[in-house]
Amino acid sequence: MAEPLFKRLTIIGIGHIGASIAGALKLHPGTVAHLVISDASSTHLKRAEELELGDEYIASAAAAVQGADAVILCTPVGSFAAIAEAIAPYLVSGCILSDVGSTKRSVIRDVSPFIPKDVFFVPAHPMAGTEFSGPDAGVATLFEGRWCLLTPIDDNEEAAAKIETLWQTLGALPARIKAEHHDRVLAIVSHLPHLIAFIICGTADDLADETRDKVLQFAATGFRDFTRIAASDPVMWRDIFLNNKDALLEMLSRFCEDTQAMARAVRRGDANYIEDRINRSRKIRKNLIDIKQA
Amino acid sequence: MAEPLFKRLTIIGIGHIGASIAGALKLHPGTVAHLVISDASSTHLKRAEELELGDEYIASAAAAVQGADAVILCTPVGSFAAIAEAIAPYLVSGCILSDVGSTKRSVIRDVSPFIPKDVFFVPAHPMAGTEFSGPDAGVATLFEGRWCLLTPIDDNEEAAAKIETLWQTLGALPARIKAEHHDRVLAIVSHLPHLIAFIICGTADDLADETRDKVLQFAATGFRDFTRIAASDPVMWRDIFLNNKDALLEMLSRFCEDTQAMARAVRRGDANYIEDRINRSRKIRKNLIDIKQA
Repeated sequence: MAEPLFKRLTIIGIGHIGASIAGALKLHPGTVAHLVISDASSTHLKRAEELELGDEYIASAAAAVQGADAVILCTPVGSFAAIAEAIAPYLVSGCILSDVGSTKRSVIRDVSPFIPKDVFFVPAHPMAGTEFSGPDAGVATLFEGRWCLLTPIDDNEEAAAKIETLWQTLGALPARIKAEHHDRVLAIVSHLPHLIAFIICGTADDLADETRDKVLQFAATGFRDFTRIAASDPVMWRDIFLNNKDALLEMLSRFCEDTQAMARAVRRGDANYIEDRINRSRKIRKNLIDIKQA
Repeated sequence: MAEPLFKRLTIIGIGHIGASIAGALKLHPGTVAHLVISDASSTHLKRAEELELGDEYIASAAAAVQGADAVILCTPVGSFAAIAEAIAPYLVSGCILSDVGSTKRSVIRDVSPFIPKDVFFVPAHPMAGTEFSGPDAGVATLFEGRWCLLTPIDDNEEAAAKIETLWQTLGALPARIKAEHHDRVLAIVSHLPHLIAFIICGTADDLADETRDKVLQFAATGFRDFTRIAASDPVMWRDIFLNNKDALLEMLSRFCEDTQAMARAVRRGDANYIEDRINRSRKIRKNLIDIKQA
């Protein structure tokens, strides 16, 4: 039998992504010899055990990482600094520490200072997820055909290659990108769309009662799609917005300028401007379909 | 055999919605005895004939309505005034004229002046649709379980009841609402979400080349969903935005205020405000799921 990629892998945080990794590992037995699951929530940890997601369940992250040759942080990015500080003294020499956070500059800023010299930190971001949360939301096939962006920070090529192999095994497409570029791209393709979805749901909720009732009754395609995006985990998204502040505010500012221009076009009845913007959107959609990302 | 609801129904405009009505009528034979299809585009009309969507195909709208006891306008709302003017002299006494437009005050404003005294105008809006266009995009089951909003303008109860029966037969849920209220509700549940989707696609398209390439390569859930909404028909949406200008600009202005407040919260790191807004969105989503509109 082939050597496992990791002898002892610890997943910290058994929510939607952590549970999906655990599920995906079951589809690829032998990748990890022993899977340890840790979660600060006793409810989540108990549920993970009921679902038989791992081989061992340990509430304390510091205890859970002991002896592990790989650790993956799967909690909201706002918790990373405290967890890194807590687990750092217990990480064994040669251990690879990785994560699945949606922001990468903040993760490097928060985690790197605590990493012992003989531990390798490989920041990663599997670009997959649904609006559902918790251990029951794990989807074993979640990562198949989806990108996993790695933002390695130093010459830990061997460690980066092992994390790439892990994601490849789970069906993802690994790609490397600089952390700063990652954060700008994610700001526009994911963070801003989610922020806008949250905002417009609030705008609707603020309408006078009679109209608001009808909004719920007659929710049409556009709004329904926005509420679906907006149903995602609050703490996770709060942490993402606060930890990718610069890039997000830049994209938001560009978007607001474009919104003002569109409002002016609607007010003035500038049909050509409006049609041109709509046609550009369709072109982008067509490009996504062409490269099979639609 | 039961009497048909309409002896001769003319659909003007055989795009996504017109073709879906034609398809739905095939699922319910006997509802209409003779279906006439008209379209200013010879390509669309020829395609409708190839797809056998109707019983007769007439390019001229004026010719197509002759002898019809019901006519449904299924073109973009910006074309309604010209079509109403063109067909008015040929509408027979007792004919019911209806439409499927997504704006209702503008439709009443544009169509009513041309309606002969013995013709009944029943504005309607089936709240269904996908991002696809043209006669090939017809979906026979499109209206099943979806609302169809009627905004009758005078005491034409019998005519309104017949249009309600038609939509009920096609599987829709008819409901009556004042035109002004319709336009405000649609502005927030459909028109503003679409406008925002078009804007954010443009914002992404304006980014510097290196980032834009990565935007396409790594399009994540939020952005992908926005591009799907934004793939809808340009002329239809241009017309909707220009014909529901007041309500749309009011909702856009509320949305922009809320966006500024959110930007300030992100800049200041106001975690409570952000989390509160996200939780309100989730509540709306939950409400939609509870009333089965999600």
